[in-house]
Amino acid sequence: MAAAGHPISSVGIGVPGLFDYATGEIIFFTNLPGPWEGFPLRTRIAESLGTSTTLINDARAFTLAEATLGAGRGCRTLACLTLGTGVGGGLIIDRKLHFGAYGVAGEIGHQTLDPEGPLCGCGNPGCMEALTRPPVIARQAGKETFEEVLVGFDRGEPSCIDALDNAMRHLAVGLANIITIIGPERIVIGGGVAEAGERLLQPLRAEVRRRVTLVPPEAISIVAAELGPYAGAVGAALSSQGSVVGDAEFLHGEIPSATRRRGVPAP
Amino acid sequence: MAAAGHPISSVGIGVPGLFDYATGEIIFFTNLPGPWEGFPLRTRIAESLGTSTTLINDARAFTLAEATLGAGRGCRTLACLTLGTGVGGGLIIDRKLHFGAYGVAGEIGHQTLDPEGPLCGCGNPGCMEALTRPPVIARQAGKETFEEVLVGFDRGEPSCIDALDNAMRHLAVGLANIITIIGPERIVIGGGVAEAGERLLQPLRAEVRRRVTLVPPEAISIVAAELGPYAGAVGAALSSQGSVVGDAEFLHGEIPSATRRRGVPAP
Repeated sequence: MAAAGHPISSVGIGVPGLFDYATGEIIFFTNLPGPWEGFPLRTRIAESLGTSTTLINDARAFTLAEATLGAGRGCRTLACLTLGTGVGGGLIIDRKLHFGAYGVAGEIGHQTLDPEGPLCGCGNPGCMEALTRPPVIARQAGKETFEEVLVGFDRGEPSCIDALDNAMRHLAVGLANIITIIGPERIVIGGGVAEAGERLLQPLRAEVRRRVTLVPPEAISIVAAELGPYAGAVGAALSSQGSVVGDAEFLHGEIPSATRRRGVPAP
Repeated sequence: MAAAGHPISSVGIGVPGLFDYATGEIIFFTNLPGPWEGFPLRTRIAESLGTSTTLINDARAFTLAEATLGAGRGCRTLACLTLGTGVGGGLIIDRKLHFGAYGVAGEIGHQTLDPEGPLCGCGNPGCMEALTRPPVIARQAGKETFEEVLVGFDRGEPSCIDALDNAMRHLAVGLANIITIIGPERIVIGGGVAEAGERLLQPLRAEVRRRVTLVPPEAISIVAAELGPYAGAVGAALSSQGSVVGDAEFLHGEIPSATRRRGVPAP
């Protein structure tokens, strides 16, 4: 295998869901059809290509890329969010991608914003994802796609304005929570909302600043991602190198084994 | 000044609110009366006692103490919550007390759980604190104090059961959010709810496990604090030593200057 004449030294795959770090098997994908549970993705790819292969959640890959080469460069503490089919997230804390004790930390999109809200693909009612993902916004606005909602928004169609206002209000609460809990130097937003640019980011910032009372409003920084639709692929490649790139370190030693089979005792 | 015949080498003060790290002046106290804004607490104490004096948020002091000597010993990533007059919080990440870019990270109690909910002392509607602090639970139950609510709960009084159920449901959503976002190895709870023991912790744990879909339920650990009502004082003393104690490091270098006067530019 070769790319532009260079041999491939390693493969990194951004995975849209959860997997077992120890075995490289899929646990579940929130928004992809199929029976994926237990699929040995890492082994299959590694054996097919004959290269060392790393899996990383796609939103954590996006985070690693934006922190290293994109809009989060130089930040010591950073939160990233990407609104696509789902709402993925990731955290850089003290210049390292944060995985937490279960390996799934950074799932900003799966905080509960409305305990009685619509069921999320993850099984929990009222997740930020269930309230703000672009396909939901499109459905609420009576459109086929998020892009059509933006066209309607620019034309002043009330259904599109309402659906976007509603989603941005929920998103603002979730980002205000992240600021209050984590205190990131910056928040980087990717996906559809970021592509819509300042017409969404500006009211979003205003609403977040209205919500956060413990941090000076002028210190709150919310910016669009810089690396475009391939940020996840860039981050997956970076993760496969296991190297320190720029300011953001990706340390394999930080990744805990999945705890699902360990049976850690309560309480 | 001397304590038990030993000279006092330093003073640490747990402060129930926000202060400016650079000047040692109070920014605001959420739940204490008085005009405190701008009060030069650190200078006044340091000059009066003639000792080096450190300020630390009281809930972050509680967190440092429980992480170092209490129920969070040995945890690499830990979340602590204490329910008293207010609802304070703190995070240990990678064995360090986490302050974030604004110096106020760890304010778990000021995440918004109900955007249209009751106004919190911090000025934001629907904070976890406004929905779960013991004085609010007492008022909802028609009692004078939280202790009376527990007595009524044990007697089977419906108003006390309802008020506690309601608060525990909100608390569970907030803790589920912390698990999903931060992935702490353990959550330590102090204050009234912890003193009530397993009669509250057990249903709380069950509700958190029902809410969290991305982490195996058996891996979720929620335990009562161990150091009692003086945990905050212990943590403040630890912070004044600026030393590494046990597994939890308290690094003064980690504390950023308050950003409120810095005027960090948008976006």
